[in-house]
Amino acid sequence: MNKLQKISDLKALAKQGGRKKLVLCAAGDEHSIDAVFDAYREGVIEPILVGRKKELDTFSGRCKDFGNFRVFYEPDEPSVIRRSVELVISGEADILMKGNVTTANLLRGVLNKEYGLREKRFLSHFALFEVPGYHKLLAITDVALNILPSLKHKVYIVKNAVEFYRKIGTETPKVAALSAIEMVNEDMPSTIDAALLSIMQRRGQIKHCLIDGPLAFDNAISKISKEQKKIGGDVAGDADILLVPNIESGNILYKAFVFFADAKVAGVVVGAPFPIVLTSRADSEETKLNSIYMAAFSVQNV
Amino acid sequence: MNKLQKISDLKALAKQGGRKKLVLCAAGDEHSIDAVFDAYREGVIEPILVGRKKELDTFSGRCKDFGNFRVFYEPDEPSVIRRSVELVISGEADILMKGNVTTANLLRGVLNKEYGLREKRFLSHFALFEVPGYHKLLAITDVALNILPSLKHKVYIVKNAVEFYRKIGTETPKVAALSAIEMVNEDMPSTIDAALLSIMQRRGQIKHCLIDGPLAFDNAISKISKEQKKIGGDVAGDADILLVPNIESGNILYKAFVFFADAKVAGVVVGAPFPIVLTSRADSEETKLNSIYMAAFSVQNV
Repeated sequence: MNKLQKISDLKALAKQGGRKKLVLCAAGDEHSIDAVFDAYREGVIEPILVGRKKELDTFSGRCKDFGNFRVFYEPDEPSVIRRSVELVISGEADILMKGNVTTANLLRGVLNKEYGLREKRFLSHFALFEVPGYHKLLAITDVALNILPSLKHKVYIVKNAVEFYRKIGTETPKVAALSAIEMVNEDMPSTIDAALLSIMQRRGQIKHCLIDGPLAFDNAISKISKEQKKIGGDVAGDADILLVPNIESGNILYKAFVFFADAKVAGVVVGAPFPIVLTSRADSEETKLNSIYMAAFSVQNV
Repeated sequence: MNKLQKISDLKALAKQGGRKKLVLCAAGDEHSIDAVFDAYREGVIEPILVGRKKELDTFSGRCKDFGNFRVFYEPDEPSVIRRSVELVISGEADILMKGNVTTANLLRGVLNKEYGLREKRFLSHFALFEVPGYHKLLAITDVALNILPSLKHKVYIVKNAVEFYRKIGTETPKVAALSAIEMVNEDMPSTIDAALLSIMQRRGQIKHCLIDGPLAFDNAISKISKEQKKIGGDVAGDADILLVPNIESGNILYKAFVFFADAKVAGVVVGAPFPIVLTSRADSEETKLNSIYMAAFSVQNV
């Protein structure tokens, strides 16, 4: 396996081992279906399209190979979601992607006890960045799904991120549990959670990673800042994954990276046995494709 | 008055009208005293040094004009803080700056009812950024003092920021009340506070500014994102001030700007009748000086 070092490596890595099967749930809006067709043309995925006939017919002219794709026509949203989820649950497909449905409805389908995942799972978002100025790739979690994660939820979020990152990157990722400061302050609950996560990793409650926290952003990513603050350990200054304390911090950081730090990004939902791609109209074409590539690369390394 | 357009304009603007009197409280560590001496050499301030004699003597050789400065020797930290605060409260000095004391102790002194501000004041931090990629200066508040501001505290934070920004920049600054999304979501309290602040401005409860919220970071700073999301109004895409929902978001954003977006920054504590400069060892020399310049410029425009 070649090593992932840049976001632009994802395409070639994703192609290894052949096309992966991607189910587009509710293939009914151009921004997602165009990304799927592009990823097909690049040789990365084999699309399976699920949607209402009228909607799908609108887009059939956008790809000359449309006639060769597996297509499922379903009459309404609940049956579109159910069929899509069943395809990945059964193993007929490798990747689930959101089309013209809300994230909440799609994920409720994934977690539906009747036709979705039987065992309880906790889903979270994982974003991988290439930021000029940092010496390696940098993941941020969770910037999109969990609003006010408790300590218990943060444990799940870290475990999901570590499990996923081990499929695409490092064996033992370094996780920085972020707050506004690097000291434990009982008036700032995020410092307490971060400290506890750090100890949980040392006690073996969270495996396959190193966790340090609380760390301020600069302590996590700058060796100079690490030295100025006299913070030891292997995580500070060299983090692979930033665990953000709340969704606002994560979302604001994500957008600051994209808009002002010239970052490239790929994002997926992790925690299910298959990656889930959520792209939004606001994502660039490049980001949508990178996200599909990252999902495809992770599947191959299961 | 010339207009402030770049952080590098601050020095020249601060010099207008002559030197401002700056009290360095606890002139006992090199990182703050060197910044004060540099600002003196640049013709921006006239230092007043308050500290313990032994400490001050250590630094007297660092500036050839030391003998001409007003110096107050005080025996211990409480009296150093008291003397420093009295100098700005009485109007003998224009700017208060933190030396070798903790921020908490210095601000407690400022708010001390016996010798500090008699009326109740709410203090907050104001950081002004020049970020390549944004079409104007961009302030963020509060990234340093208030940990979990309530709606009431956010009102104070906005009022403090607007009052200060009117002294150095725009007459009617545009305030974006940030969250992770631009919709009101009762499960995400920061969206509720942001929406309420927006209405409070429309009802005249907060004056001299425009407020819009909730806005995600990209909606606040990108006209393209504003159009994609069909957000109206004059604030989205053109914010002057970002009100962050919590200290973690603000602090992480501040550091991301400095470390990965090549930003220049100046910061002061606002809400008292005089600006308070807090610099830390981790700040660059440039940031420390910019902060003193911004404080000096604001005083002149009172």
